[in-house]
Amino acid sequence: MTTTADLRTAVKTYWTAADNRDWDTFATTLADEVLYDLPQTRERIRGKERYVQFNREYPGDRHVRVERVVADREGQQVAVRTLFTVGPQELHAIHFFTFDAEGRISGITDFRPEPYEPPAGREHLVERY
Amino acid sequence: MTTTADLRTAVKTYWTAADNRDWDTFATTLADEVLYDLPQTRERIRGKERYVQFNREYPGDRHVRVERVVADREGQQVAVRTLFTVGPQELHAIHFFTFDAEGRISGITDFRPEPYEPPAGREHLVERY
Repeated sequence: MTTTADLRTAVKTYWTAADNRDWDTFATTLADEVLYDLPQTRERIRGKERYVQFNREYPGDRHVRVERVVADREGQQVAVRTLFTVGPQELHAIHFFTFDAEGRISGITDFRPEPYEPPAGREHLVERY
Repeated sequence: MTTTADLRTAVKTYWTAADNRDWDTFATTLADEVLYDLPQTRERIRGKERYVQFNREYPGDRHVRVERVVADREGQQVAVRTLFTVGPQELHAIHFFTFDAEGRISGITDFRPEPYEPPAGREHLVERY
């Protein structure tokens, strides 16, 4: 079983490599059969080769900052909050990772929640920032 | 320090109580100074009383199913994926929990990622479902 420290290291290597566009190092964190899932668009990508290519071809000059890492040793899974900077825009993203027996990433589920205006009727309870 | 099992139990109690609209039990899972944060709308709610009221007053007949729990004992935090059913609609939500020394929920950060159409140019790599 992979330790919590191993899970954190794998995820840190993944994000540092992605931010540096170092796709060789990025690929070392992935299982060959990695499955990438985007539930919001109902898209899936199967396999390391395609997933690395997807990242390499992703348009725009993106930079990423890791905000929070939630590492679950028993469940062999990690949840991550990030902030993506695309030009002047900062966007939240959330990522769920699963791992194979060797500690490589075997599953990634990504979410990109967009800003929206709050519905009326709760102003008596909330403050805006 | 709260164990992983304690963290999972607190989160399970929170969701079961929310789904049953059992606000007394729901309140027992929360620290008095709980801070609720919605980064997409830049809204915050401070304190157990207001946060319970926010949930009690939330419009619509919502039901929730917990999809995944990522429990981090070292970090004393949990990430949760849920599916909300509002009438015929099923919506993803993601929740990050932090805890105080007594194992009560001290911080909740919620995200509600909406469906969207994928951008063109990656059809050679993805499959839709």
